[in-house]
This record gives sequence, C-alpha cells and structure tokens, in this order.
Amino acid sequence: MVKEIISIKNEQLKKWKKLQTKKGRLASQQYLIEGFHLVEEAFKTHQQIEAVLYTKHGKEKWNSFLHPFEKSQKVLVSDEVMKKISTLPNPQGIAAVLNLKTDSQLPLNLSGSWLLLDQVQDPGNVGTMIRSAAALGWTGIILGEGSADLYQSKVLRAMQGSHFYMKIFQGDLQDWIPQLKKQGFKIYGTDINKNATPIFEVEKTSNLAIILGNEGSGVNANLLKMTDKNIYIPLSAHTESLNVSIAAGILMHHFKLS
Amino acid sequence: MVKEIISIKNEQLKKWKKLQTKKGRLASQQYLIEGFHLVEEAFKTHQQIEAVLYTKHGKEKWNSFLHPFEKSQKVLVSDEVMKKISTLPNPQGIAAVLNLKTDSQLPLNLSGSWLLLDQVQDPGNVGTMIRSAAALGWTGIILGEGSADLYQSKVLRAMQGSHFYMKIFQGDLQDWIPQLKKQGFKIYGTDINKNATPIFEVEKTSNLAIILGNEGSGVNANLLKMTDKNIYIPLSAHTESLNVSIAAGILMHHFKLS
Repeated sequence: MVKEIISIKNEQLKKWKKLQTKKGRLASQQYLIEGFHLVEEAFKTHQQIEAVLYTKHGKEKWNSFLHPFEKSQKVLVSDEVMKKISTLPNPQGIAAVLNLKTDSQLPLNLSGSWLLLDQVQDPGNVGTMIRSAAALGWTGIILGEGSADLYQSKVLRAMQGSHFYMKIFQGDLQDWIPQLKKQGFKIYGTDINKNATPIFEVEKTSNLAIILGNEGSGVNANLLKMTDKNIYIPLSAHTESLNVSIAAGILMHHFKLS
Repeated sequence: MVKEIISIKNEQLKKWKKLQTKKGRLASQQYLIEGFHLVEEAFKTHQQIEAVLYTKHGKEKWNSFLHPFEKSQKVLVSDEVMKKISTLPNPQGIAAVLNLKTDSQLPLNLSGSWLLLDQVQDPGNVGTMIRSAAALGWTGIILGEGSADLYQSKVLRAMQGSHFYMKIFQGDLQDWIPQLKKQGFKIYGTDINKNATPIFEVEKTSNLAIILGNEGSGVNANLLKMTDKNIYIPLSAHTESLNVSIAAGILMHHFKLS
C-alpha cells in the first residue's frame, strides 16, 4: 500500500506546506516541484525524489509514469490536500518533493560559459535566464546574493526544469569573481556607462563569465570595477534599457562559441 | 479649480474603472496608464491625454510636472478613488486616461523591420517583445488575432511606455502577410520543424517581417506555409524551446541591419 494523506491536519503535510517559504526549504533541505512536466524532468535527470504526490485523478492520468517509483516514495493525497500544498490556483494532480542541491563552494576546475546574476530580484527573470542558459548551451549560473531564490515556485515555473541540466551555484560574487579570474576566466560586466564597449567590438572567448544586474540599478558598481571589460548592447536613442532576461538572452546567444 | 473626485460612486469614476476590461476600453475608445514613468512618456511623446488623475500626495510629488496640463485635463482624486481605478495593489499617486489608437488598416507604404505576433497570449511576453522591439530599433509590431490586448494593464507595465515610440497595428495575419509580401517584404516564420533553416544561414535583409507564435503551439501551420522561409535559433539537444520573448529578442538583435 502506498501512503495516503487525506486530512489537511496531517503533520507531514504541514511540513511540505512550509516548502512554499525559503525558511521552510532551508530547514528541511527540500523543495517542491509541481505539475507533470517538472516531475517527469526530475525523474529523467535522476534527481533525488523524496516523495511524489498525486491525487486520484493524477493517478489515473499518469499511472504508467508513476509505476517505477518505490512504494515508499508514493503518496496519494486528496484534492483538498494538493490544493493546500500547491502554489497554483488550479494545481495539476501531481507534484514532488526533491532534496535541495546547494553548492556553496566554487569548484577549482570550472570552464565554459557562465552567467553571473547580481541581485536579479524578479523570479520570472531569474527563471527565464536559467531556461535560456540551458537552451543556448551555456555551462552554468552563479546566483549572487540578493537574487531571487532558485527554489521558489515562480522561479521553478519559469525554469521549466532547465535547472536539472545546468550547473548552478549560489554565492557572494565579490568573493567568487576573483576566484573565477584565477581559474583563467574573462569577466564581462554589463553597463550602460559611456565607457563600456559595444558587444560587437568584444572578442568571443572560452571560459567567459558575464554579469547581469538588478532590474532597477544594474550591476553593482564595485563588481563592475572587478571585471576585465564592461559591455553593452547598442540600443535606440530614446530607450532606457532592455528587460534583463532579454539582455541575457541576446548576450548568451552573441557570445556562444560555435 | 481642477475637477475633484472623492466619492467612489461618481459616474465618471465608474466609466474609468471600466477601462480595466477590453470591452470597457473599446466602448469608450480610451485606456488607462498608471505611474509617473508612463504618464511622463505619454506627455513627452504628445499622446492625446484625456485626463491626468492624481492624489494629494501625487500632486505634492509631481507638482511641476502637472503644471503644463490644462485645467480641464486635471482631476484630483482621493486615495480611495485611485485604488478603485488602479489595477495595482499599491497605486502610485498618478495615472492618465489616453485615447486609443487603433489602426485596423495596413498602410500601403510600409518599410523596415517588423515583428508579427501570432496568438502570443501572455501579456508579459507581448509587452516585453514590444519593449525589446523599440530598444533594438525595429520599426513596428503587428498583433495578430488571439494575442494579448495591447492596452491591458500587464502589457502596459511590461512595455514601459515603449509603445509610444513604435508603429503598432492589430489585424488578421492571414490577410496581412500577403499584403506585406506585395509591398516587397520578406516574411520569416519561426518553427522548430526539421525543414526550417538555422538563423546563421539566413540572409539579413531590409523590409523584413518575422512571425513569433503562441507560447504552447508556436506559429500557426497555415501562416508558416505563407512565409518566404521558416527559421530557428539552434538550441541544446535536451531543450524544448526558449521563452517566446527571449527568442524574439535574439532574432531582433540578430536581424538588425547595421
């Protein structure tokens, strides 16, 4: 028999509901993903799945997908319970609890193309940038302090499971940029300052990290001083800026090797 | 004396509140913009401003900006009234009612670079694409049927006033694509089909229109048959797609002339 949770007062349920907050996620070192697409991607990419939750309707719809899971992983929940756990107004009948992967040490053997996010606060932007990085074949992402939390529901929705394919670290960019430089990386900041260089004049290179910044204030001035070069995408005269996730998409496409 | 609206039962207020719906906007041929940035852009770009609404706090903050408006345009409203009109949980103390500009006839002398949207439903995507088009120096946008309404609040927020700088039409792409072709345009559809051409192999050209499609289903198959070429951005093997507004940003940057 699989586990079954029908009461909204269940202790386990209360714990899972706390995964909606960053505090709750850190306390249990777990996070929640919702909907078939994400659960399927988690399974395909061999994530550590603590539990897969489904309603009666979900079981009917995804019965063959659910088959290979261990009994100890499977939890049948009532519609009411699923609604309680979910961050969506109309949850799909399937969700899963995964173990957090948080690397707070930067490895010593990095290479490839990396995106560094400095206080990008909008969860849709952070999620979309990670989705784009995966799609455009970039190696990884470093989420600097003050950026939206990787495991919150809006970021997860925008990532669409792309984080399962990416190297993602969270850390202080002030500390990590010098480490990347020591490892032979070129660091480009993005800046609208007149002294910055238009991207067409900048060489494409392997082992590259590009810093994108906060929606309102851009990349922190201290970080811009630590870069090899600061660059910009040429824009029309009257325009203030591109949305940061659009700028990231254009830059990642432009600096793609081959 | 400027007009003053303090009662939430006021008839004029009821009319403005209806601008939150497409039906209401079409009935009065007006729409509402919120916040100082958008109202300032509307003023700078000489939009037809029916009314500028502000709270007492707004008047204190933007007094010199409000000065050049006609008395007949200015309406002081209570905080309660502003909250009623606004689509935001915490409205800024300023908003404006503008006249709709809807061109349903395609002019006969078009040129430049155009983005065609086929059933792009997410208002954030539509707004962001228009903001990118303006920033990247594209000429205009044609919103096909089934795309998010240009004048709804979420589209307006994402556009950030960029629509004041763009040519924007709304119409049936099935009818308009042949007209664009007659005017000498090249039409490129976006498609993930194997027969499509990677963008690196496609010539850049003036008088170009690129079609972007629905978030789930892409560009309508009938439209893809009407194009000169269907194109794609090469992506990593495991990835399904880019967000449509990111794809649009990359394409508009890639096919920019000069």
